[in-house]
Amino acid sequence: MADSISSDSIEPASLLVVGSVAFDNVITPYAEKERILGGAASYCSFAASYFTKVRMVGVIGNDFEEEHLNRLRSRKIDLEGIQRDDSGPTFFWKGKYHENFNQRDTLDIQLNVFENFRPDLPDSYKDSRFVLLGNIHPALQMHVLDQLEGQTYVLADTIDLWIEVERDALLALIKKVNLFVINDSEAEELTGESNVILAGKKLLQMGPESLIIKKGEHGAILFHEDGMFAIPAFPVTDLRDPTGAGDSFAGALIGRLASRDRTDFKAIKEAMIYATCTASLTVESFGCDRLESAGASIIEERAKSLLQLISPN
Amino acid sequence: MADSISSDSIEPASLLVVGSVAFDNVITPYAEKERILGGAASYCSFAASYFTKVRMVGVIGNDFEEEHLNRLRSRKIDLEGIQRDDSGPTFFWKGKYHENFNQRDTLDIQLNVFENFRPDLPDSYKDSRFVLLGNIHPALQMHVLDQLEGQTYVLADTIDLWIEVERDALLALIKKVNLFVINDSEAEELTGESNVILAGKKLLQMGPESLIIKKGEHGAILFHEDGMFAIPAFPVTDLRDPTGAGDSFAGALIGRLASRDRTDFKAIKEAMIYATCTASLTVESFGCDRLESAGASIIEERAKSLLQLISPN
Repeated sequence: MADSISSDSIEPASLLVVGSVAFDNVITPYAEKERILGGAASYCSFAASYFTKVRMVGVIGNDFEEEHLNRLRSRKIDLEGIQRDDSGPTFFWKGKYHENFNQRDTLDIQLNVFENFRPDLPDSYKDSRFVLLGNIHPALQMHVLDQLEGQTYVLADTIDLWIEVERDALLALIKKVNLFVINDSEAEELTGESNVILAGKKLLQMGPESLIIKKGEHGAILFHEDGMFAIPAFPVTDLRDPTGAGDSFAGALIGRLASRDRTDFKAIKEAMIYATCTASLTVESFGCDRLESAGASIIEERAKSLLQLISPN
Repeated sequence: MADSISSDSIEPASLLVVGSVAFDNVITPYAEKERILGGAASYCSFAASYFTKVRMVGVIGNDFEEEHLNRLRSRKIDLEGIQRDDSGPTFFWKGKYHENFNQRDTLDIQLNVFENFRPDLPDSYKDSRFVLLGNIHPALQMHVLDQLEGQTYVLADTIDLWIEVERDALLALIKKVNLFVINDSEAEELTGESNVILAGKKLLQMGPESLIIKKGEHGAILFHEDGMFAIPAFPVTDLRDPTGAGDSFAGALIGRLASRDRTDFKAIKEAMIYATCTASLTVESFGCDRLESAGASIIEERAKSLLQLISPN
């Protein structure tokens, strides 16, 4: 990859990304856009593609245009795991952000072909060493893990829906996860603890090797057996659409870990710098547009700025 | 000072603290306490006293017991500038925090002797080189500056009330301030800008040499001509009463600067570490109790932890 951020000469470990592919209608206080390419798998894959070779698994419907596949291909994303289901249209989500982007309402959701999605892996994906489980049903996340051969490093995300309706399946999954990534309101919902530090410590006891709580514009906190790490968000002044910021964070995070083939405390901290900067690009345009086109050098520049921003020296 | 955090052998520069002295009734989701010693000048002075010699200016009423003065004296705080007004009781505030401590309501406020407070400085205070202007009326803050002789480094705080009713006086004051400290909602109110980074940049153009926006549990951001610095809050798990956290932050901040007699970008960043840790002690008990008794060594320990928490290495 000519524009890979990794300066290692070693071929980076392959990263498996599993999640939704969607069309989104997004309404912000400033504009409204329709049929944006979205879904966790899209954001995660674009973000990770700056760091490592991505193998993508998801389902698309009979309305999914080739141009979107070409966008993914042009980031060298392996699409062998993309299933085309001609029985109906692609997963659709419509949401509206409030003033200040602090909250959003889901106005419409149509699962369509996503309802019967079963993430069966192509044989060529089964040796993946890094795995990103997007926020699909925890039983499907577990199904992905069951198909993998050899040692893996697994990052999983979830959403409030699964905390509410599939708590037991989610708790079973968490125990098999190396790095669990969740936002602050979900952490509170899962633990019943409103203090983010206490929530993080409780979650760590639920089984994952380590944990990141995302706080949106307030940054993120890593909980690890070797310590904690708190990082602010990148100082974005041109916020357009927060959709996909969390997925971009997760994608860049594990993409960076895969590219360096390291998963220790310091490596996760370093990956959080890149993840924060990659997510900052996502929110500067609707959908994946800026994330997809920004280029690796902007991420590198922002990573340097962010290191300056947090440096006490 | 035997327990000063400063390891310098130089006598630290004297710090003038001006603000309210109050009795507070505080209701939290867990407990309720009455007639707690409070007010900006009390919190600021206790916090600063770990770092430098403090000269305190404020007014107390006919109900103010000697025991509270003794608490301040035991932290070696100079009380020559404390005015006793026997015409009425001390400033009184009663407030209630919501669940999660995110918001508070003022239930009662009685200005009492504070209504006629005029911060006239004792002659012995006029050579102060570091000045903390607590959130009193901007015209009174200006009156303090007018009495000072020689070069000074001035930190000023404010509250939403003055933004609403004394905007022009506040804007005039800001231009004379070296370090303006304000919380995120006040920054938005003063600039009309909900993005905290844009609000910070706008505020910096209004005249202060540098600016800190406090974000409570989400930390603080410094805006300075040499760059920005973002710091998370200290990870407090035993939150009891947030009253005075911002004042403790400001007091420790300028106390630390005074103790080192340095005000450059790096010195402010370093002082923010100590300020954050000192404020974290305040919120772990009602009123000034824990701040007053914690001791310098705990602040030093927390400063080391906080540096670890933000270290990407």
